[in-house]
Amino acid sequence: MQVTGNSTFYAEALRLRRQRLASAIAFPVILWSGNRSSRNFPANKYPFRASSHFLYFAGLPLENAAIRLEAGKLELFLDEAPPASALWHGEMPKREEIAEFMGADAAYPLAELEKRAVGAATIAVQDWATLQQQVSVLKRALAPAKAPEGIDRELTKAIIELRLSHDNAALAELRQAAAVTVEAHKAGMAATPSARIEAEVRAAIESVIIAHNMTCAYNSIVTVHGEILHNEYYHHPLRPGDLLLADVGAETATGWASDVTRTWPVSGCFSPTQREIYNLVLAAHDACIAKIQPGVEYIDIHLLACNVIAEGLINLGILRGKAEDLVEMDAHALFFVHGIGHLLGLDVHDMEDFWDLAGYEEGRTRSERFGLCYLRLNRPLRPGMLVTIEPGFYQIPAILNDREKREKYQNIVNWDKLAELADVRGIRIEDDVLVTENGCEVLTAALPTQASDIEVLVKGG
Amino acid sequence: MQVTGNSTFYAEALRLRRQRLASAIAFPVILWSGNRSSRNFPANKYPFRASSHFLYFAGLPLENAAIRLEAGKLELFLDEAPPASALWHGEMPKREEIAEFMGADAAYPLAELEKRAVGAATIAVQDWATLQQQVSVLKRALAPAKAPEGIDRELTKAIIELRLSHDNAALAELRQAAAVTVEAHKAGMAATPSARIEAEVRAAIESVIIAHNMTCAYNSIVTVHGEILHNEYYHHPLRPGDLLLADVGAETATGWASDVTRTWPVSGCFSPTQREIYNLVLAAHDACIAKIQPGVEYIDIHLLACNVIAEGLINLGILRGKAEDLVEMDAHALFFVHGIGHLLGLDVHDMEDFWDLAGYEEGRTRSERFGLCYLRLNRPLRPGMLVTIEPGFYQIPAILNDREKREKYQNIVNWDKLAELADVRGIRIEDDVLVTENGCEVLTAALPTQASDIEVLVKGG
Repeated sequence: MQVTGNSTFYAEALRLRRQRLASAIAFPVILWSGNRSSRNFPANKYPFRASSHFLYFAGLPLENAAIRLEAGKLELFLDEAPPASALWHGEMPKREEIAEFMGADAAYPLAELEKRAVGAATIAVQDWATLQQQVSVLKRALAPAKAPEGIDRELTKAIIELRLSHDNAALAELRQAAAVTVEAHKAGMAATPSARIEAEVRAAIESVIIAHNMTCAYNSIVTVHGEILHNEYYHHPLRPGDLLLADVGAETATGWASDVTRTWPVSGCFSPTQREIYNLVLAAHDACIAKIQPGVEYIDIHLLACNVIAEGLINLGILRGKAEDLVEMDAHALFFVHGIGHLLGLDVHDMEDFWDLAGYEEGRTRSERFGLCYLRLNRPLRPGMLVTIEPGFYQIPAILNDREKREKYQNIVNWDKLAELADVRGIRIEDDVLVTENGCEVLTAALPTQASDIEVLVKGG
Repeated sequence: MQVTGNSTFYAEALRLRRQRLASAIAFPVILWSGNRSSRNFPANKYPFRASSHFLYFAGLPLENAAIRLEAGKLELFLDEAPPASALWHGEMPKREEIAEFMGADAAYPLAELEKRAVGAATIAVQDWATLQQQVSVLKRALAPAKAPEGIDRELTKAIIELRLSHDNAALAELRQAAAVTVEAHKAGMAATPSARIEAEVRAAIESVIIAHNMTCAYNSIVTVHGEILHNEYYHHPLRPGDLLLADVGAETATGWASDVTRTWPVSGCFSPTQREIYNLVLAAHDACIAKIQPGVEYIDIHLLACNVIAEGLINLGILRGKAEDLVEMDAHALFFVHGIGHLLGLDVHDMEDFWDLAGYEEGRTRSERFGLCYLRLNRPLRPGMLVTIEPGFYQIPAILNDREKREKYQNIVNWDKLAELADVRGIRIEDDVLVTENGCEVLTAALPTQASDIEVLVKGG
């Protein structure tokens, strides 16, 4: 545990978060940080990631700790490391030091928690060992965080309200994650000309993140098969005509994430077809960002992207009809299959442990339409909200070869014309966009999006 | 899933492993591969690592799969990905393709497993979701792998016998992991002169591993505080007088590990005190490797290291007395606190999910002596066994400032002389050593150990 940095600033931010929570609910809350999960044997663990809800109010990635919040007060529950632990893990900061850093009002060993657990709400953590602790301490069954009940549901709603708009302490972290992510992508572009396989570009990107003592916020996608949306393989060779899609984001030590995608030509030069589609995706990206401001419905941003893409594909002779009709019948989703983006914060899909409780305004549910069902966010935008904007174009065999879709869109798609785009398998352009009082700010704007700028960065490597 | 490579060679190796298992036990065996563990929300998972026992017999890191072994036959149980999965994860190889690659005799959906589970032994996996599957399919409680009962215990012993000696297919993988690890450490040395913090050196090392499409076999240690044995922090600045200790190993896609430590001067030049102690640790390292051959007791290798270190510290005026007396009273363990090494294979501490059942010959148990209690391996060496040899010297405050030890060794240690070694906080030199028919082979020998060679590698960066 590293307990350093501007502690006054941070402790004050944590105090304000607690006060805002206290003004929303009238019962005590206990949040657990979680424990490490084992990889191949008990002592070989995955790197620790504390629960995001714990991090939000405690600010430090403590293992096997809990905090109790009530009326704006914070109590920390944490066992001091046993003496033998110093041999393997070094001297740890004392409980009191940690408590002071986070501005806690009191600090106790974990064994004291049970006595102070009556009537407390909580959020279920991800790891099973800690979940057992939660059930044991609270003496009640725990519904998963996607379907909380009673006071847990009230707590969930209160946390969502808080975490939907980022405060300055959060934004300071998010900006750091964004800045490192920008550098990481640039390094990936520069490394591409000399790389033989995807993994070598991934190494260049992730090494920037590691060098800044950050972690990856999610498993990186670095692939010449961008049409596989969550492709986690890195063994494909890079060939001169390929596009490389990299979706990689850094996460700071206290858990704040970035999430950025760029797509670049392996050769340093987009082919004419690749450039056409790239510029279409970029047009959708830019149009969406131009519209972002408080009060705008995120689903309308999504539909705007769908329309720009449909219109562009009509102009290229790939789709037939009127853009708004095509979007209405989900024809755009043959190529732009996912949503325009999602919330971003302590989680790369922020608060997705709450499923759609965070992403969807109360009373709204997911559409069953092919063109809308993957939309992760459906709320009016508000200041302090951080969202991704990530339009894409993909030729996904599972969709384009699907018999039902093939029949439905037989006369809508010019399949011969589409065949000319064989070298455009997957393109996505993704930035992190903060809703401000008057509009928005792209936190990742330092990473170019223009095709010509991207080419320069690749060739410069 | 990447199903490529020399499948005939691999399928044949897997067949031989099954046959050897069949000759040791007379009941069916079911081994589960495991499932991913969630990180901060359900869909954001840690990178998947299949169970080592599954990998040993199945050869592929399949998620949520099981194999049933009986009389040398292999049955694969695996669900084909649902059609919607192709959208996100691409087209997966079919069950039949995978079955053919691993030389399976039959392949079924997972739902068929329960019917064929009667009387089967198993090994408990690490993740809770799969453990629940095991219990549900076998219809019985499952003791943890460290204390198996009945046929599970018989299976455990049979697996230990097999995995203690590596076959050629395993060795091919282990050599690849070793070769990449050697390159990774060299990159770390070369990156040190321009690095400001530990994390930057870590990035240089791990990026070589990532670029080879391998993973880290364990959480890397890259630190100027080598005296903290399992230090997983990387934020310390590098100062010219520091030693940097890097304990990093690659793991191949099918799970075979390497485990290597080097210690080098940040400035590219060991100080006189650092060089003295470095050469002492190296002398222990070389003496141990020179003794490794079939039939030798690993604990004697450990005691040899203890003696070399004690003798060296006497010569340097730090310890007083005769080496063998000092080792008898654990005085060496003030500075060389851990064991000389451990088994290495699919796990970096191979089969440590069996606790000491694998590391300790039947009938032997851990010593309670301070100087022996951390020894992870206590068996006679045999051909095909891969072990680490990793002597070290550490000034660990938790030990050297411990009042009891301070009193016990008051007149044994020349504390004033020791104070002159303030710039030697932690040194370890670790290689992967294969026991051969006539002696041994150092799989990681391509990475220099001589102080002068190390200096050249650092300065060359």
